[in-house]
Amino acid sequence: SYAAFGIPYFVGDLVPEAADLVARSPEEHRQRGLDVRVGHEVLAIDTERRSLRVRDLAAGSESEESFDQLVLATGATPVRPPIPGIDARGIFGVQTLADGIAVRDAVDRGGARHAVVVGGGYIGLELAEALVLRGLEVALVEGAAQPMSTLDPDMGALIADALRAVGVDLHLDAMVESFEVEDDAVRGVHAGGDLLPADLVVLGLGVRPGSSLAEAAGIDVGSTGGITVDDHQRTSVDGVFAAGDCVETFHRVSRRPVTIALGTHANKQGRVVGLNATGGDASFPGVIGTAISKICKYEVARTGLTEREAAAAGFEAVAATIEGETRAHYYPGATPIRVKIVAERGTGRILGAQIVGEEGAAKRVDVLAAAVWTEMVAEEFASLDLAYAPPFSPVWDPVLIAARKAAEAAR
Amino acid sequence: SYAAFGIPYFVGDLVPEAADLVARSPEEHRQRGLDVRVGHEVLAIDTERRSLRVRDLAAGSESEESFDQLVLATGATPVRPPIPGIDARGIFGVQTLADGIAVRDAVDRGGARHAVVVGGGYIGLELAEALVLRGLEVALVEGAAQPMSTLDPDMGALIADALRAVGVDLHLDAMVESFEVEDDAVRGVHAGGDLLPADLVVLGLGVRPGSSLAEAAGIDVGSTGGITVDDHQRTSVDGVFAAGDCVETFHRVSRRPVTIALGTHANKQGRVVGLNATGGDASFPGVIGTAISKICKYEVARTGLTEREAAAAGFEAVAATIEGETRAHYYPGATPIRVKIVAERGTGRILGAQIVGEEGAAKRVDVLAAAVWTEMVAEEFASLDLAYAPPFSPVWDPVLIAARKAAEAAR
Repeated sequence: SYAAFGIPYFVGDLVPEAADLVARSPEEHRQRGLDVRVGHEVLAIDTERRSLRVRDLAAGSESEESFDQLVLATGATPVRPPIPGIDARGIFGVQTLADGIAVRDAVDRGGARHAVVVGGGYIGLELAEALVLRGLEVALVEGAAQPMSTLDPDMGALIADALRAVGVDLHLDAMVESFEVEDDAVRGVHAGGDLLPADLVVLGLGVRPGSSLAEAAGIDVGSTGGITVDDHQRTSVDGVFAAGDCVETFHRVSRRPVTIALGTHANKQGRVVGLNATGGDASFPGVIGTAISKICKYEVARTGLTEREAAAAGFEAVAATIEGETRAHYYPGATPIRVKIVAERGTGRILGAQIVGEEGAAKRVDVLAAAVWTEMVAEEFASLDLAYAPPFSPVWDPVLIAARKAAEAAR
Repeated sequence: SYAAFGIPYFVGDLVPEAADLVARSPEEHRQRGLDVRVGHEVLAIDTERRSLRVRDLAAGSESEESFDQLVLATGATPVRPPIPGIDARGIFGVQTLADGIAVRDAVDRGGARHAVVVGGGYIGLELAEALVLRGLEVALVEGAAQPMSTLDPDMGALIADALRAVGVDLHLDAMVESFEVEDDAVRGVHAGGDLLPADLVVLGLGVRPGSSLAEAAGIDVGSTGGITVDDHQRTSVDGVFAAGDCVETFHRVSRRPVTIALGTHANKQGRVVGLNATGGDASFPGVIGTAISKICKYEVARTGLTEREAAAAGFEAVAATIEGETRAHYYPGATPIRVKIVAERGTGRILGAQIVGEEGAAKRVDVLAAAVWTEMVAEEFASLDLAYAPPFSPVWDPVLIAARKAAEAAR
């Protein structure tokens, strides 16, 4: 059990040892009474006979294991498109701790000068920054017009500026066509018509739910590719539960299933499964798409739906964006913050929010997450009794000002 | 118009100039079309004749001014008990910017070695820290067993530790009996049986609503001493509004009137009055007692009711307190945070919360304020989709863990 989200900080040497990311080793699990079998792959699930076919990878042998209750926690697998040359040495995924160790080893060994990161999502951007910190020349290739396409483009443009400011060479609206390979090792990336030199390539193209084992067993998998579960994390087969990156989850705003690979959801769902599989009655109430990241000088966060997502979900949405400061203007360390609130026209219901700013900016998204969760309208939000003192906020916190503007825009 | 809450930072020289605290000068107001008269005192309001008796303090003359709509924004006056010697030189209040300039001048002049702060509320503690920063020996006298009696004592004890760590000499459970005066200047403070040397005394004993002018005019004043207003900030007299520290405000959790001198409420109420006095229809929905402060190494915040306040308001309350960290444990800069949640027994409704921690801790109170505001139960709060990434939070944010414990305690 380890913190996959910590990998970029390990690569960037903010976290010195891979062991720092390990929450619990197999041995620690065993000490708590779990029969942990690493190096074993479940090849098939027989839901009728309530059994698993298991392969011991080291011994090469197979065995049958029976179960009363089964919990699927098969995670997600990184997207690895069949681009020519993708299996060359020097091209890394960054899904597992082993991936992270491999990338860091490649950097630690020295000799690598040029890195290319493919994909401008959270992990890709965090890794681009980590590689800059380690002294490499870094290019980033992203298919969209702005990095971090989980934000609306106007907010994503700020992230692009911050990346360029630390020297990341951005190739936006660009796809990787092929990898240039010499002696089985990557030497360059063909993308958007350019050839980018590369001793090291990191793939940050997102992940897909690891649902193929479940699907082969006849367990329902949804249109998103994630295992279908109800609010008790029960799959379509009685006594079979699933949790984490392998499932699809109910989005409380769009009312649609989504797959979001995020440790905080996985943890909460795991707890629900643990209770239910042992006779309890717990439920997971869904998600609203909250996310946060630190990218170069910016803290970045979102919750609920973006403008684009709101339109796609059938809402008539308006948006208001304001520029404010994180502290009273006269207090040392006040920095700019941009807050965007997406609201439903007419009702003023807060559908989502995005924040880009410097220190102390982005965790403000949590109070907006509570508002999205409770379907609060922007006008009520603007009246909230939020904490004010000069080291923490102007008299009107930027989120309150944004809500007031959103309420006006929604009228 | 100035930021009274910034005074401690001006005294402590974090803010270099008093002018930095001025939001708008009389001249700037005049440029916006306001007929601003400084140095004028309203002696009486005649609500029948719709007129004011006004004294020009410089000229010594009086005049009559008529009004259609009247807005009372008379603020609050600092508590200044009739302790023997309290009018000596070197004893300062800290309510107005002029007070702040006087304290800072006294420090800047040099010569003062010993300061005594009377009162351990927010302003008193912030000033104690400011005077330590300026190199003075500082003692603090507080009548309660812990400073910051707006927190429960278990949380206040942490603040006491932080003050002692920077050298503040705390005299708790102690009242000032008299001031030692020589040649009209303060030389010491008799408190709790001790004589504390003092060249400089700062009174931080809180404020009372400035409601005497209204009361003399027959406008209703409530049991709290604040002017009574409805949710449109209308007083008991038609066409007379009031806003800010001079009014009493509805507390949404205790359902009782309270007086809370806080710029963020005053600002929101002022906006409501401005709209209503000019034909609009705006309302102020009340407060929940949210407050935040930075005291030495700690950030401190509260919202809703403390355990003690909940009991006084008639709730059967339980509380859960947890220790956590502000960031993922492996991420640089993770620091301890203590979160206390007060919930109603049986329902699990979140009645209040308190946070003490280091950098990044206390603004987390805002999401708890939203929960108190919406009367959310702790179990639902524990499921909220709050922002997680290693630089900002552990996988389970400390506020979520506290809510889970509060839900268990409330069962």
